[in-house]
Amino acid sequence: MTTYDIAGLKSRLGGIRTEENPALVKQKSRDFYWYSPTLKRQLDHVVGDIIVSPANEAEVIRTLAAAYELGIPVTPRGTGTGNYGQAMPLSGGIVLDLAGLNTVIAVQPGRFVAEAGAVIADIDKLARGQAQEVRMHPSTYATASVGGFIAGGSGGVGSITWGGLRDAGNVIRLKVVTMEAEPRVLELTGDDLHKVAHAYGTNGIITEVEMPLGPAYAWVDLIFGFDTFERAAGFANSLGEQDGIAKKNLTVIAAPAPHSYFLRHQDYLQPDSHVVIAMIADFAVDATLALARRASAELLFRSDVLADDDKKRLPPGFELTWNHTTLRALRIDPAITYLQTLYPFPDQVALAAKLHAHFGDEVIGHLEFVRFDGKVTCFGLPMVRFTTEERLDEIVRIHEDMGAPVFNPHRYTLEEGGMKQTDDVQLAFKKEADPKGLLNPGKMIAWEDPSYDYKSGKHFLFKSLAEAGVAE
Amino acid sequence: MTTYDIAGLKSRLGGIRTEENPALVKQKSRDFYWYSPTLKRQLDHVVGDIIVSPANEAEVIRTLAAAYELGIPVTPRGTGTGNYGQAMPLSGGIVLDLAGLNTVIAVQPGRFVAEAGAVIADIDKLARGQAQEVRMHPSTYATASVGGFIAGGSGGVGSITWGGLRDAGNVIRLKVVTMEAEPRVLELTGDDLHKVAHAYGTNGIITEVEMPLGPAYAWVDLIFGFDTFERAAGFANSLGEQDGIAKKNLTVIAAPAPHSYFLRHQDYLQPDSHVVIAMIADFAVDATLALARRASAELLFRSDVLADDDKKRLPPGFELTWNHTTLRALRIDPAITYLQTLYPFPDQVALAAKLHAHFGDEVIGHLEFVRFDGKVTCFGLPMVRFTTEERLDEIVRIHEDMGAPVFNPHRYTLEEGGMKQTDDVQLAFKKEADPKGLLNPGKMIAWEDPSYDYKSGKHFLFKSLAEAGVAE
Ligand SMILES: Cc1cc2nc3c(=O)[nH]c(=O)nc-3n(C[C@H](O)[C@H](O)[C@H](O)COP(=O)(O)OP(=O)(O)OC[C@H]3O[C@@H](n4cnc5c(N)ncnc54)[C@H](O)[C@@H]3O)c2cc1C
Ligand SMILES: Cc1cc2nc3c(=O)[nH]c(=O)nc-3n(C[C@H](O)[C@H](O)[C@H](O)COP(=O)(O)OP(=O)(O)OC[C@H]3O[C@@H](n4cnc5c(N)ncnc54)[C@H](O)[C@@H]3O)c2cc1C
Repeated sequence: MTTYDIAGLKSRLGGIRTEENPALVKQKSRDFYWYSPTLKRQLDHVVGDIIVSPANEAEVIRTLAAAYELGIPVTPRGTGTGNYGQAMPLSGGIVLDLAGLNTVIAVQPGRFVAEAGAVIADIDKLARGQAQEVRMHPSTYATASVGGFIAGGSGGVGSITWGGLRDAGNVIRLKVVTMEAEPRVLELTGDDLHKVAHAYGTNGIITEVEMPLGPAYAWVDLIFGFDTFERAAGFANSLGEQDGIAKKNLTVIAAPAPHSYFLRHQDYLQPDSHVVIAMIADFAVDATLALARRASAELLFRSDVLADDDKKRLPPGFELTWNHTTLRALRIDPAITYLQTLYPFPDQVALAAKLHAHFGDEVIGHLEFVRFDGKVTCFGLPMVRFTTEERLDEIVRIHEDMGAPVFNPHRYTLEEGGMKQTDDVQLAFKKEADPKGLLNPGKMIAWEDPSYDYKSGKHFLFKSLAEAGVAE
Repeated sequence: MTTYDIAGLKSRLGGIRTEENPALVKQKSRDFYWYSPTLKRQLDHVVGDIIVSPANEAEVIRTLAAAYELGIPVTPRGTGTGNYGQAMPLSGGIVLDLAGLNTVIAVQPGRFVAEAGAVIADIDKLARGQAQEVRMHPSTYATASVGGFIAGGSGGVGSITWGGLRDAGNVIRLKVVTMEAEPRVLELTGDDLHKVAHAYGTNGIITEVEMPLGPAYAWVDLIFGFDTFERAAGFANSLGEQDGIAKKNLTVIAAPAPHSYFLRHQDYLQPDSHVVIAMIADFAVDATLALARRASAELLFRSDVLADDDKKRLPPGFELTWNHTTLRALRIDPAITYLQTLYPFPDQVALAAKLHAHFGDEVIGHLEFVRFDGKVTCFGLPMVRFTTEERLDEIVRIHEDMGAPVFNPHRYTLEEGGMKQTDDVQLAFKKEADPKGLLNPGKMIAWEDPSYDYKSGKHFLFKSLAEAGVAE
């Protein structure tokens, strides 16, 4: 690793909080990369040189100008809950901790404006004062920053109604600071938002976010039990397609995982039940229960009839879903890792069931239903009993061969993860916003390796900019 | 027509408002049946004997008990905006005017409770005080009663997000008074709601309604122009499938109808433009315009940049859509009538374009995009240049032969209209709730003609009760 002029940097950052204590720097140089045994092996040594914690956009600008002058890499960091080492400073240098930009600037009908480091739960608390709520968030609601979600996330709770972060309308406006001698502040809207959405901060530091709000209904967690995984998936799919039922989250998890891993809910669960976990507006519970009766589902749990003690004791239902499912499994069985797959419409239920049957106990079925290109379908976050990296790659291949694209969470680059397709337009924007390539280096192959063929990947969640209609 | 003991009735209804002035009785015996030349011919003579206007549920009960005792038919009426003669008293007797039951009982987070005769716009006004709104309503928002909508409507504004009235979750609870010696008050929820939804009041008088509310966004009317009908339909379909864009209504109308018929918007329109009329949340307008640019749509109109004078002068965009499109056409060209069709997913755009091309100017394309069984597709309300009833029937047949089921708006029975499939369960419920068959007689063939084969119809919007999972 090169040595950077950290002393020179500090002399230029007078008044801005910095931290060089090695233990703290190490802590802030990591995220949840350890979900992946592959990334754990590859990234365990990664560490920055200094944490810089700006308190506002002006300090971000000063930091970037100084880093540009001195050629020091800058890796932005929200709260470090990403799963693919996104926030890890592969080339050392500055960890730009954005937690200090945490002001919620405005809550208006249908939208909020917040600084990028604001924690989603804090924004939501303010919105609730107006009977509104953040309409889409990762299951890390309680800890993740809104800027980190946009730069490193893809969707989650709310996606069954609103689609993913990639979809138009889910981000309204971003303020982004470029990495130049005199950093510019860009205001992005419309198609231009695709430039920085899920780009790991490789082409600008998000300082301000405007996103839509939804109505703050009284959500009820319902858990239904089924005797087969396919019936659970079929029920979730048909509940997902019930247009009149207001819902926020819809998950399927194969037996015996729920009973084994959801310790605080264990009393309500049975080892042989495949479950559907649904987050439904209180006024739509009746309609949902009627549907469940027809599907011969067993109602295992409903949060609206709990005693107050139990209500306090139990985590919200969505903290059993998305990557919280994996987290709970990992706590009990450290040999578990996971994949991220898509079961394309319209064959999602049959395909998920087929893959579930194919792997048996080695790959534990976990589906997250979402709206995707206007249809209801599901992503998978199957839990994998890890043996070797080779077998993991083989499991990925089998999924793809059977028709389920994999967004590989065991890769730390944008392209190999399959999440974001780079292209000429993206590169041109990066060249403009980060001419020295100092922002989160190593994460965009197309930048690192000019010979990289960015059309090679099969399936990307976030389209290339040209496809998204962004002109150079 | 039999003569009923109206004097005896009146003696039993002391204190309840009644009206026998023939002009007024005639006026309250009709609805918008004249949209259809066929119904106009068949129903023009229909008239009740007396209007009874109860002020509350107790008076409804007294009226039904007296009518039951005396064997007088009762045809309920909201505000008489139905298009199929639903509210017309085929056997005379009582027109039960429910306009007096107009109390909005409660507005709570996510729901309201109102008496059945409350006008939807009045409910909405109260909900808006809490930043909420009626999430689905007919384009007759300003005049229709909520009970009449449930008993006689099918969906409309809001259906692009929430599906139709037939869908679980769009009605929460109903209070229904039966037609017996001692009328009972039933509370229906869950699947039982299907019994009275779109049943034209043939099996009970709805007195109270509980329905969901959505967030009251600042909706913006956008009108886009296209050079072909198919491109307009394709754009509407893809906008409909944009999960992240909060929207309330999405319509396509073929040229030159918009310019010819939408007089107050005429300055913004062109004779050769096929238009898409969209109702989009203010915070999603940017995203929508970006999509439109990519589709080379011409932005003809946006309500959010109007001068105040124009704002006042223009009707809301949704009053150009659904059956308001037909109404505006009829005002200019009385020879226009219409059909109601469905273009089934996933071929909706191609099929609509094919039918548009097939008929040329005789059938003017009009699509209303909705969510239907979880997918985005469209209904059609094509405007037909009427020549003969035979040709109208032929046009219906051609639609069905080409793959577009027709819900025939030129029929006044539940079954022939294709809207509601009757079955044993429905009949058993009718037998229980209206043993003498006095409620809105003549509208349910299965009741009138015991030999009627209710499986004969091809395609029904509202499923049979057995299909809907309601046990006898
Ligand atoms: C238990 C668990 C559950 C999860 N569930 C979900 C889920 O449901 N959905 C989902 O999408 N993800 C999920 N994740 C992943 C992660 O939580 C989300 O992506 C989260 O939103 C990241 O926010 P953060 O503040 O922690 O970002 P970080 O991890 O700090 O950063 C994420 C990426 O964004 C960059 N970045 C951060 N802030 C900025 C900024 N201001 N400007 C530019 N770039 C920036 C970082 O460099 C990094 O590349 C989960 C993770 C865990 C551990
Ligand atoms: C210009 C125009 C546009 C329209 N747009 C739409 C649209 O977008 N979507 C749509 O679905 N419809 C539409 N319609 C049809 C009609 O407006 C709706 O169905 C409306 O909701 C009917 O309400 P109403 O109060 O006028 O009912 P009415 O016409 O009075 O009654 C409708 C039916 O319900 C019965 N009924 C009324 N009240 C009760 C009660 N309390 N208990 C039991 N039965 C009762 C009547 O007997 C009748 O059978 C439109 C009609 C017009 C003229």
